[in-house]
Amino acid sequence: MTEMLDLIHELWFTKRDIISDGYDRALYRLAQETPMTVHEYPTGEACWTWRVPEKWTCHQAYLETLDGRRLIDYAEHPLHVLSYSLPYVGLVSREELLRHLHVHPHKPEAVPFVFKYYERDWGLCTSQNVRDSLKDQAYQVVIRTSFENGTLKVGEIVVPGESDECFVLAAHLCHPAMVNDDLTGVVVGLEVMHTLQSSAPRRYTYRFLILPETIGSVAYLSHHEELIPKMVGGLFLEMLGNDSPHALQGSFQPHSQPDRCLGSALSAIDPLSFQSAYRTIIDNDERQFNAPGVRVPMLSLSRVEAPKSSGLPPYPQYHSSLDTPVIVSQERLEASRDAVLALLDAWEHNQYVVNNFKGEVFCSGYGIWIDHATNPEGHRRLFEIMERCDGTRTIADIATELSIPFQSAWQVVSLLEEKGLVWLSRAPHPTLPAG
Amino acid sequence: MTEMLDLIHELWFTKRDIISDGYDRALYRLAQETPMTVHEYPTGEACWTWRVPEKWTCHQAYLETLDGRRLIDYAEHPLHVLSYSLPYVGLVSREELLRHLHVHPHKPEAVPFVFKYYERDWGLCTSQNVRDSLKDQAYQVVIRTSFENGTLKVGEIVVPGESDECFVLAAHLCHPAMVNDDLTGVVVGLEVMHTLQSSAPRRYTYRFLILPETIGSVAYLSHHEELIPKMVGGLFLEMLGNDSPHALQGSFQPHSQPDRCLGSALSAIDPLSFQSAYRTIIDNDERQFNAPGVRVPMLSLSRVEAPKSSGLPPYPQYHSSLDTPVIVSQERLEASRDAVLALLDAWEHNQYVVNNFKGEVFCSGYGIWIDHATNPEGHRRLFEIMERCDGTRTIADIATELSIPFQSAWQVVSLLEEKGLVWLSRAPHPTLPAG
Amino acid sequence: MTEMLDLIHELWFTKRDIISDGYDRALYRLAQETPMTVHEYPTGEACWTWRVPEKWTCHQAYLETLDGRRLIDYAEHPLHVLSYSLPYVGLVSREELLRHLHVHPHKPEAVPFVFKYYERDWGLCTSQNVRDSLKDQAYQVVIRTSFENGTLKVGEIVVPGESDECFVLAAHLCHPAMVNDDLTGVVVGLEVMHTLQSSAPRRYTYRFLILPETIGSVAYLSHHEELIPKMVGGLFLEMLGNDSPHALQGSFQPHSQPDRCLGSALSAIDPLSFQSAYRTIIDNDERQFNAPGVRVPMLSLSRVEAPKSSGLPPYPQYHSSLDTPVIVSQERLEASRDAVLALLDAWEHNQYVVNNFKGEVFCSGYGIWIDHATNPEGHRRLFEIMERCDGTRTIADIATELSIPFQSAWQVVSLLEEKGLVWLSRAPHPTLPAG
Repeated sequence: MTEMLDLIHELWFTKRDIISDGYDRALYRLAQETPMTVHEYPTGEACWTWRVPEKWTCHQAYLETLDGRRLIDYAEHPLHVLSYSLPYVGLVSREELLRHLHVHPHKPEAVPFVFKYYERDWGLCTSQNVRDSLKDQAYQVVIRTSFENGTLKVGEIVVPGESDECFVLAAHLCHPAMVNDDLTGVVVGLEVMHTLQSSAPRRYTYRFLILPETIGSVAYLSHHEELIPKMVGGLFLEMLGNDSPHALQGSFQPHSQPDRCLGSALSAIDPLSFQSAYRTIIDNDERQFNAPGVRVPMLSLSRVEAPKSSGLPPYPQYHSSLDTPVIVSQERLEASRDAVLALLDAWEHNQYVVNNFKGEVFCSGYGIWIDHATNPEGHRRLFEIMERCDGTRTIADIATELSIPFQSAWQVVSLLEEKGLVWLSRAPHPTLPAG
Repeated sequence: MTEMLDLIHELWFTKRDIISDGYDRALYRLAQETPMTVHEYPTGEACWTWRVPEKWTCHQAYLETLDGRRLIDYAEHPLHVLSYSLPYVGLVSREELLRHLHVHPHKPEAVPFVFKYYERDWGLCTSQNVRDSLKDQAYQVVIRTSFENGTLKVGEIVVPGESDECFVLAAHLCHPAMVNDDLTGVVVGLEVMHTLQSSAPRRYTYRFLILPETIGSVAYLSHHEELIPKMVGGLFLEMLGNDSPHALQGSFQPHSQPDRCLGSALSAIDPLSFQSAYRTIIDNDERQFNAPGVRVPMLSLSRVEAPKSSGLPPYPQYHSSLDTPVIVSQERLEASRDAVLALLDAWEHNQYVVNNFKGEVFCSGYGIWIDHATNPEGHRRLFEIMERCDGTRTIADIATELSIPFQSAWQVVSLLEEKGLVWLSRAPHPTLPAG
Repeated sequence: MTEMLDLIHELWFTKRDIISDGYDRALYRLAQETPMTVHEYPTGEACWTWRVPEKWTCHQAYLETLDGRRLIDYAEHPLHVLSYSLPYVGLVSREELLRHLHVHPHKPEAVPFVFKYYERDWGLCTSQNVRDSLKDQAYQVVIRTSFENGTLKVGEIVVPGESDECFVLAAHLCHPAMVNDDLTGVVVGLEVMHTLQSSAPRRYTYRFLILPETIGSVAYLSHHEELIPKMVGGLFLEMLGNDSPHALQGSFQPHSQPDRCLGSALSAIDPLSFQSAYRTIIDNDERQFNAPGVRVPMLSLSRVEAPKSSGLPPYPQYHSSLDTPVIVSQERLEASRDAVLALLDAWEHNQYVVNNFKGEVFCSGYGIWIDHATNPEGHRRLFEIMERCDGTRTIADIATELSIPFQSAWQVVSLLEEKGLVWLSRAPHPTLPAG
């Protein structure tokens, strides 16, 4: 498979508006890497409370002085025009122009990413520096865009497991000429699926969805309602290339098994990572999966710097022309890929732990004794874990109860399993004495 | 209807001992304002563990010096004699007199309200100032009271709703020559019922009980046991005229729908109000409704100044001759009436919110989009409320979960209902996907 | 019965290794005091994941200089040899000797208690002072021990009650030449059973087990599985003679009735006592009862000085030759016996409180009125308890909810029962109105 960073270099500057030729080209390029099903939903198609919008194309867009000096040009950067801008050609006063000319709120040198999918307006985007230099009374605006029937496309890669219960990964491919948001999530997800395909069969079916933000998830879910009850958990992937540790956002159901499992596993994978509740780090397509009538516990993994409450943007170059390959690294992409694989590994092994033993285990007899004097922490943990193996708790439940990493609990449980002291069950199997 | 303050002026000085001609006169005067059913429970009637006491009348009561100077006279103020005092006529030593002469613990100029319904004692009440002036060796006491068979009377006003499930209001009419405790609750309740009668039909049946404290509630409940399972909530009204913001005391069941609904609604009605748990603000008849074998979640609304733990009295003039019309105002009575009506309005609209939608709503398409940039708080709240509309939560549950006023949640839910996105149900109606 | 301290003086110096003639002699001596069933489990017998070890005897053990000066001698103190030491006779270098010579970590003058039941090693124990004096190049070691088939013995005393549901007491008789750990638990338990035998019949069956640590509990439980569902609670007794207040360690199920009952009762029995969660004070045989597949909520009562987190030993002389009769007193043993009896008394009376009344009780009519003015605390408590008598709460539940001693709740409930206002039930009996 092409290296993740090479794929990014190849695709990042494409005009990946939500329904657009650029988006389609990028998706079919990815399908060359890993075969996928491409679902198509035509313009106007009802998707629960939504409708699929039209395909949008920008043929030309620029701003000129009246004497023909070109100040802003879409040919130079796809962000110079509002995504889904109406066409507009004409002379406008400086005052009117400024109402349609968007700049970045914090970065004077950056061109912002602005979209108005449903507001029907025209607009250009530029840097604060260029905007400040506009002193003429009037300017020439040329925006040649077209709206036509097309199809929203969702790429789906499935790695079937023993069970048709599935765990969903998702990332969004839209956002023209941007990288970290969310080409990084796409390429990381692609490599994860690649690895799953080539490794031993799994218990769960894994499903990776590459989609345009929000409407893509709604389109897919509304056309696959029969799958929803089989979706036992999920993880949205985004912003995985910038220079920050991982951040894990919980689902709407904070006590779900995916929340407990991935939550307890992450700290051992990335000790600098942080975790926070649903909707407190970054909002994206996981919202559609967690929403009423769906209620799939989908978490979100990113490298967002700090919770929303900090007031900081997810990363400094967010939604701007500064979100380029420069801010991501192959090393971080690989670390994120490995983190996702490790989280899925935890998920795969998260089962109910059923005791074959009664009372405390004769540890010396099974060669699993940990001496209290030389390793008090290990001794205590061994016993704390063993005494919770009662068929009512998963490994994630035990780890959460003890505030220890999933991996620590899993390691002890594996040892017990190897010794025939416990067995693992997908369903609860209480072993309380009848009475 | 006569103005609330005018009714108070007319009735406050009546001798409204729990079973007495004065109480009866006051109740029948109120029945002229709003027709009511008057339930009568004769002396000796068993009411669960209680029995209805005798009717009590004080014909004359005074204290004189041996040379005939009258120092204390019931003819001047009804509080000068212990409520339910035994008759007593005789010469008493100063020492014995003092054992039977009650004064107010904090207010040297006030005559206290003292009652001994079940202790069978004689007594007079006066101010600390008068008591301190008693220097003679002996005094003449004359207390001419009589005990005879009578009937305890409970006034009941019912505004029937679509359902026979009822919400109970209650206030006590007893306490001779006092105003804030609890004539104010009575007149506020009366106006509330008056308003309900003349407004559009309601879902719930509303039932207002005017009764003598404690025994009145026990008498009514024990003779209407068949109604108890229909009583879905209640609010006791008392001390609603003094100069403090509202105080709302929760029921014995702090997670009940009435607790959540009225609790989340009050702060928007009276921003200065405070709330506290069952039995921590003021104890009264709500105790009978919350008690074992009844367990109606009845809250209590008052203008008590601070929780009991403060050590302060409910209001400075409590249980004394200083509790006169001077300390209440028509304006505050009206504000309390409006507060009760607003709380009942919230109650009436507190239903389970069932989503017709799946996934997130296409807000732009329904014209309910709130822009994140211009109104981040409104945007967040809209989504936080929408994502909880799943048929398992009432409006009060959503408001409580989000720590927002009931009215804010209700407003958003109403908008969603208007758009056909949700419907409201009296019973839970979960919309989780089958699985 | 022989005084507890006299029994201790008689038995303490015996060589009570877990399966040994000394242990057996001590057990049969106790059986003379109170008749008991002695269960025997032969060497090699499977006990769940365990096997019963061999009987161990030490015939002789000493350390000498090469010129025959005896430095350490088992004949002088049973702790001088490792419990379950392999036999060893030979000349050893100073270096090798030190690897097999155990000392106390903190007390330079004490001989430590060291055991290696399952590690198969030889060893001697001495004081740090003696060890420090060893300067020769080589020494003569003589350890003559033998391993042979024997039987592990568990003494069981049962006082049958009306029900075959039983409450289990346990203490361990092993540990050569030590007193507080746990001869004290044994003699206290013995006197408790003695008292139960001679007092009025009880509701529950009481079962006292005298056993060798850990393996004794496993042996007994694994051979009495049919009893486990009947074990409704338990209390391990240990370290009850040293000079500290009582410490109560909760069970694995902190909300169980035994936890709530004993937990709320102890503070009234020993106001200086402290309580802490499962495994946070001292670990012992209660672990086998709380373990998976057994799950009997067994608490532990001791005089441990501070929770484990303090880093302190349970008491200063713990597991050393300093644990002698000097550190225990008859007075403290009797106080512990009385504490256990008081805890069992609470347990015996812990039932669901079912109201015969509805509404609040007419306290004056039943002669149970507590005046608010003269006893506000008593008044409040009376009402707080009464309003929780609804057939869904035990006395322990009410005490726990109100953070008051079990005895205070019990006293009020007894008064209510005496007045016919409540009745007590072993099972929940909710009295909510039908609706």
